[in-house]
Amino acid sequence: MLHLGLWMLTTGHHIASWRHPDADPGAILGLEFYREAARIAEAGKFDMVFFEDTLAARERNGHVFGEVSIYSLDPLISIAALALATERIGLASSYSTTYHLPYVLAEKFATIDHLSGGRAAWNLVTSGPAGARNFGLGDHPDRPTRYAMAHEVVEIVKALWDSWADDAVVFDKARGRYYEPEKVRAIDFAGRWESVRGPLAVPRPPQGYPVFIQAGMSEWGMDFAASFAEVIFCAARTLEAGQAFRSQMRAKAKGFSRSPDDLRLLPGYFPVVGPTEREALEKEAYFRELVHPRMQMGLLSERFNLDLSAYPPDGPFPMADIMATLEDRPNIGGERSRFLADIREDDTIASYSRRMAARTYSAHQYKAGDPEQIADHMGQWLGEGACDGFILMPPVVPGELQVFVDQVVPVLQAKGLFRKDYEGTTLRDHFGLTRPPRSAVRGL
Amino acid sequence: MLHLGLWMLTTGHHIASWRHPDADPGAILGLEFYREAARIAEAGKFDMVFFEDTLAARERNGHVFGEVSIYSLDPLISIAALALATERIGLASSYSTTYHLPYVLAEKFATIDHLSGGRAAWNLVTSGPAGARNFGLGDHPDRPTRYAMAHEVVEIVKALWDSWADDAVVFDKARGRYYEPEKVRAIDFAGRWESVRGPLAVPRPPQGYPVFIQAGMSEWGMDFAASFAEVIFCAARTLEAGQAFRSQMRAKAKGFSRSPDDLRLLPGYFPVVGPTEREALEKEAYFRELVHPRMQMGLLSERFNLDLSAYPPDGPFPMADIMATLEDRPNIGGERSRFLADIREDDTIASYSRRMAARTYSAHQYKAGDPEQIADHMGQWLGEGACDGFILMPPVVPGELQVFVDQVVPVLQAKGLFRKDYEGTTLRDHFGLTRPPRSAVRGL
Repeated sequence: MLHLGLWMLTTGHHIASWRHPDADPGAILGLEFYREAARIAEAGKFDMVFFEDTLAARERNGHVFGEVSIYSLDPLISIAALALATERIGLASSYSTTYHLPYVLAEKFATIDHLSGGRAAWNLVTSGPAGARNFGLGDHPDRPTRYAMAHEVVEIVKALWDSWADDAVVFDKARGRYYEPEKVRAIDFAGRWESVRGPLAVPRPPQGYPVFIQAGMSEWGMDFAASFAEVIFCAARTLEAGQAFRSQMRAKAKGFSRSPDDLRLLPGYFPVVGPTEREALEKEAYFRELVHPRMQMGLLSERFNLDLSAYPPDGPFPMADIMATLEDRPNIGGERSRFLADIREDDTIASYSRRMAARTYSAHQYKAGDPEQIADHMGQWLGEGACDGFILMPPVVPGELQVFVDQVVPVLQAKGLFRKDYEGTTLRDHFGLTRPPRSAVRGL
Repeated sequence: MLHLGLWMLTTGHHIASWRHPDADPGAILGLEFYREAARIAEAGKFDMVFFEDTLAARERNGHVFGEVSIYSLDPLISIAALALATERIGLASSYSTTYHLPYVLAEKFATIDHLSGGRAAWNLVTSGPAGARNFGLGDHPDRPTRYAMAHEVVEIVKALWDSWADDAVVFDKARGRYYEPEKVRAIDFAGRWESVRGPLAVPRPPQGYPVFIQAGMSEWGMDFAASFAEVIFCAARTLEAGQAFRSQMRAKAKGFSRSPDDLRLLPGYFPVVGPTEREALEKEAYFRELVHPRMQMGLLSERFNLDLSAYPPDGPFPMADIMATLEDRPNIGGERSRFLADIREDDTIASYSRRMAARTYSAHQYKAGDPEQIADHMGQWLGEGACDGFILMPPVVPGELQVFVDQVVPVLQAKGLFRKDYEGTTLRDHFGLTRPPRSAVRGL
């Protein structure tokens, strides 16, 4: 069976979604927008809704764009609000291991897991130089160091969640025992970067540990994911790429003495759904028209870290200049080769721009079709071992999310590819993941 | 007119509230409990609900107590959830300037202010050594340094909130302008402890700045509060103490070129309300019986940082030992003299324990009486310049909060001492505070 997550990103994953007549860009600073989207996803029996965490306004060389949303609300605050508005759907958020202290991370995700009744997930991200500008770290740690730090953070956070036994809390009014003190322990962790005494001031989360998500596709990111992640976000534009990545991750998990069946691999999926294929393609063409020329050029300039408006739009790509400036581009990592691979030999700046600028994250799958075609396509990926589900990136929210839930989900359900209702109450239940027992070791 | 805040603390401010037959200690890890309490306070037209942030489990020398709640859920997550459950009441949270980075603080409180439609308040706290254990800072900064750091944090956070003009966001679909880039600016702040580039990835908060709260009563805390706080929490057990502190803070505010009328001073208030005075006193006696002897001894041992169970309960206080160990006691600050002042000359450990252990924060006002008496008492404090309102500390939640709202609030309203309905929509409206304009200065 497929697993489905909804990736919430302002008014949708189409870069010009806010210009769509149905979109209400002002709404994304209020709660009703998120409540509505989460409720649609919950009505569609999605496993979870997911928010990212960017820690910096989108800009280039100190200048922000005026054409796209650069908002980045605190994601944990958004999912906390949704805990009250929903009952079953999982609540996932990225949170940086580079800029938040492990005690804070443990406390926050334990709080969400308790308040939501076991529906929290944490996407562990390491943060690059874009965030560093805002965090006073002149010497931003390099990628291997960031991942080594992240490994230490995970160990500390687990130990803090394990600082309470599952049965520590007794609420024995007659005996005057709130909990059994001997079932709560300090962790006295002293690591390479962090030292934490504990215990956590929050009992062990309902799920034991909130679900671990990881999304890095670099060499370090993949090892990091294989060693502890349960849900893996990835980008795969072809079935073969999905199969290769999934096989690789499953093999790597074995290398860390884990069962490959404890991994759920979810590639991003950007659907354009119409009643017929023709209408889906018309919708796609309409979306493309929403992209303002200034927006296209701004986004490409951001992508390549070079002001492309200084070059003739009908001339060839200034490849040498691009290669030179990409070195300084924050967070480029594994995306760089995909960026360059997208350029066709006969592309001008203008032709590439028209083709590529529509999607915020163009590394992900893109499929226009009728509901049957989308469902079949998803089923094929699942059946041929290219994924365990998808992280849905609706072009416009709530409109295109509603279309997917109303038109594609029933087809998936009829084909036996997706649940007709939730069977459990926690996010681990939805994903079929076991609840981790408390570690027996004091500290590490 | 009075201002009223509700200080949420587990099942109530009576230290043994969880043992009360009506209390449901298991509920405080779920959202319904907070929703119910916030809705009662909103029905009572309170200005705000407030959560504290402790950053460490309550313990002594590595041992936690088994008799009282040591939970400390992330407070921002709790108030975020309440933003959806309420419509008008303000949402206030403590958050440490010592252990959270200024960019994170600015982002979080801006997010809450947006999502709640301008109802956020931030109680700026500096964190002492209790937190330091969990944050890997071996050399915890001393109090003057912590306040100097806090001053810098406030300046950065304000500059980040001001990095967007109020009219920067335009959502002009036709012109393809989400916002006007020239109305968003970096702050390029380089201070003594922090450097932050900005801009914030969140537009300027609806309130300009969320309401600033401060609670420190030390010399540094008072200067800090006088320089920028709008709402001040304090402890005052007598009307004269309230008058003296309020006069002092108003004078200090002038010294920082502020109008004293921009301050709202709210002492803590622990009410025990009965239909008659006699019944209130009976309720008080009943509350006292809920305090388990082991709980009393544990709390006193925590308070004095000395294991008092090692001394004869009917013997005198071991004052020399207490004075010696208080030096190491975290966060003791201005509380120390009050702790010692509470000891009567003829007190044994047992008699002191019986008298003092009932309230979590015994530095605050305590009043048992019928609704008329409580209302008159509050009115007298307001009328004689000892406060601008109170931060209510109900003994048991939701029960005693409901009693206050049902029985005392109508009397306050009938006497013209408290609003009958909200007049505005933001927390600044409730407090009668002006919306701060955007600072014209780039950076600082």
